[in-house]
Amino acid sequence: MEMITVQQAEDIILSQNQDFGKEYIPYEQALGRILAEDLIADRDLPPFDRPTVDGIAICHSSYEKGNRSFVIKAVQSAGEPSVAIDLEEECIEIMTGAALDHTVDTVIRYEDISIDSGIAKVNINSKKGQNIHLKGKDKKEGEILVKAHQIITPAIIGIAASIGKTRISVKKLPNIIIISTGDEMIRPEKIPSPYQLRRSNGITVQSVLKKYNIDADTLHLDDHYEEIKKELIRCIDEYDVLLMTGGVSMGKFDYLPQVCEELGIEKLFHKIKQRPGKPFWFGKARNKKLIFAFPGNPVSVFMCLHRYFIPWLKTSLEIREDSYQFAVLQNDIDFQFPLQYFAQVKLKVNESGQLTAESVNTNGSGDFSHLAETDAFIELPLEQNCFKKGEVYKTWKYND
Amino acid sequence: MEMITVQQAEDIILSQNQDFGKEYIPYEQALGRILAEDLIADRDLPPFDRPTVDGIAICHSSYEKGNRSFVIKAVQSAGEPSVAIDLEEECIEIMTGAALDHTVDTVIRYEDISIDSGIAKVNINSKKGQNIHLKGKDKKEGEILVKAHQIITPAIIGIAASIGKTRISVKKLPNIIIISTGDEMIRPEKIPSPYQLRRSNGITVQSVLKKYNIDADTLHLDDHYEEIKKELIRCIDEYDVLLMTGGVSMGKFDYLPQVCEELGIEKLFHKIKQRPGKPFWFGKARNKKLIFAFPGNPVSVFMCLHRYFIPWLKTSLEIREDSYQFAVLQNDIDFQFPLQYFAQVKLKVNESGQLTAESVNTNGSGDFSHLAETDAFIELPLEQNCFKKGEVYKTWKYND
Repeated sequence: MEMITVQQAEDIILSQNQDFGKEYIPYEQALGRILAEDLIADRDLPPFDRPTVDGIAICHSSYEKGNRSFVIKAVQSAGEPSVAIDLEEECIEIMTGAALDHTVDTVIRYEDISIDSGIAKVNINSKKGQNIHLKGKDKKEGEILVKAHQIITPAIIGIAASIGKTRISVKKLPNIIIISTGDEMIRPEKIPSPYQLRRSNGITVQSVLKKYNIDADTLHLDDHYEEIKKELIRCIDEYDVLLMTGGVSMGKFDYLPQVCEELGIEKLFHKIKQRPGKPFWFGKARNKKLIFAFPGNPVSVFMCLHRYFIPWLKTSLEIREDSYQFAVLQNDIDFQFPLQYFAQVKLKVNESGQLTAESVNTNGSGDFSHLAETDAFIELPLEQNCFKKGEVYKTWKYND
Repeated sequence: MEMITVQQAEDIILSQNQDFGKEYIPYEQALGRILAEDLIADRDLPPFDRPTVDGIAICHSSYEKGNRSFVIKAVQSAGEPSVAIDLEEECIEIMTGAALDHTVDTVIRYEDISIDSGIAKVNINSKKGQNIHLKGKDKKEGEILVKAHQIITPAIIGIAASIGKTRISVKKLPNIIIISTGDEMIRPEKIPSPYQLRRSNGITVQSVLKKYNIDADTLHLDDHYEEIKKELIRCIDEYDVLLMTGGVSMGKFDYLPQVCEELGIEKLFHKIKQRPGKPFWFGKARNKKLIFAFPGNPVSVFMCLHRYFIPWLKTSLEIREDSYQFAVLQNDIDFQFPLQYFAQVKLKVNESGQLTAESVNTNGSGDFSHLAETDAFIELPLEQNCFKKGEVYKTWKYND
């Protein structure tokens, strides 16, 4: 079978987006979840005419008639019922955030008055309506404050609190299991033999998914055909998505494609014209469960996860934002293979406001030692072999 | 007292950075914490010569002598001890990630050989040493893989796993309490009277701090002098940092500065030439506990938190990265006050790789309804009143 292009792979994967439904949760637990409903103003914002400073509230027509001295009728702080004046020569000593009564229409700062024996004297030219944040100025009751289909940020939590939206509709998250394979991979707490490595793919992928509030399970399988088959049957039953690492190459013990075929899992593609991540296998079980089977080396896993799985996740959760950003390449790159090359780069915004991408020298897809000091993969088009400093390409960020 | 500038405020706050020490935690819990030690390669990376493809491993001198057919002596998969050849005419059928024996030095892909009756025939021109990722090529044992003083990302967790670093030294986090004030502020689940508002500052600030793995406590105090005093005494004893919202303006019930003075808390400044956030009060108790007292409106809180507190936190935790990014203003802004203006902007990277900042029309500091649809404050210099499209300024991001 012909290898497919990156674009074809993306199209196939995104066409498999799924809706996992919605649920209501307390707003205190909603940080990082995906908002599934618009948040609506439950009343005008602000809900009343409010002073933006501390001082006195007067009726401006009295000032216009030449009056500069006002009898302080009462002190009104925020949270107290509005206090009316009975006479035009009166004022209310009033605090920021209090609710102005309709008998007053202008606020003058403490800095601009002097108070003596219960009389406030105005020392400036006053303008009608000054220092008041008018009812409904920001938003009207019923207006949308926050649109659905975005990640819930601290600001959105605050807005939810302010409108009394203590239970919020959010998108349900898929149940995911991360399955790593490979007989040579031992537990991190063990001492490897000279020919063994410690496992890291499971915990790395699990950590990436935490950003989306997904608590994925992990499982490691040795390269035993029957064991892999048994566990795949169970996992396809219990989970929505299987994220697998390893076992998809040409090796004698790369059983995954074979096991999947035996289980009647439809292969949607195997192998993409890309480096790293060429042997990526993607399929769908009869019950619609999806299997993303990435090649086992850590850099390939990282690339396939951020280039394909995260966009699939965002599409499924209806997050309306791109997963990539354009950046300006800072150095020349030569790549003489008929593959779309994803180079590891360090991203930076320079003092001109330009997003720059500097590539590091890596030794191919097995070299994960640079993943911590870089931020993104820059996607270099298949059609070219030379990429020059100053050219602009898509980047896929993995370190925030 | 003269108001200070933004730069002076920043200098005073950053000079109060504190070291909260270090602790060891399991690597599975370290995501988002601050790495306090370098992570070192425990052996060469890769730890052995490893094939980068599946195929056969040969001794190239035999090929050079004209031999093209190799007897398959054994199959060696990843995780198995290395298998040596005894004769030059032998080869090992070997899988990606296995450990090459020193008797072989070249790997040829399955795609480039044909196998019949236990004999592999080479169909291409082979180059000595090809398809091998050499021991120590990426990093040598003892080399630094990850430098201290950065936020622990999924990639760093993966590297820690791969070197068996199952307990990691991280910076301890400060104990923080967020104290909101204001009689008019009721709990979000209650129905406000026409002159009341629902509380949101506490949960918003708490949500922002979760990004840094800080679980801050919250407390709401009414505007009662003795109550505030009693609670401040307790909190200064129990916490490292008090983040307060409200109670620092000119109002009759803005007790905080007065209470702090009575408790012998040193005022380091009160009021900054800025909008929003002008009445920000900052002080230090005798036991070195810090009090950040922000004005109560949500936009001021957000601005002071991201412009001052987060940089203080990063400095204290020794995170070596700037908290701001330069961005290109997308529209003209006029601001005719002798204050440094922080405008709410929407950030975007355009198709040229430029970070752009588009300001939204807000109604001054009380209007928090735009915080969800914007990403950052753009900091517009005090000395100017007009800011033009295309000019580049610092931005302080609050929505990631």
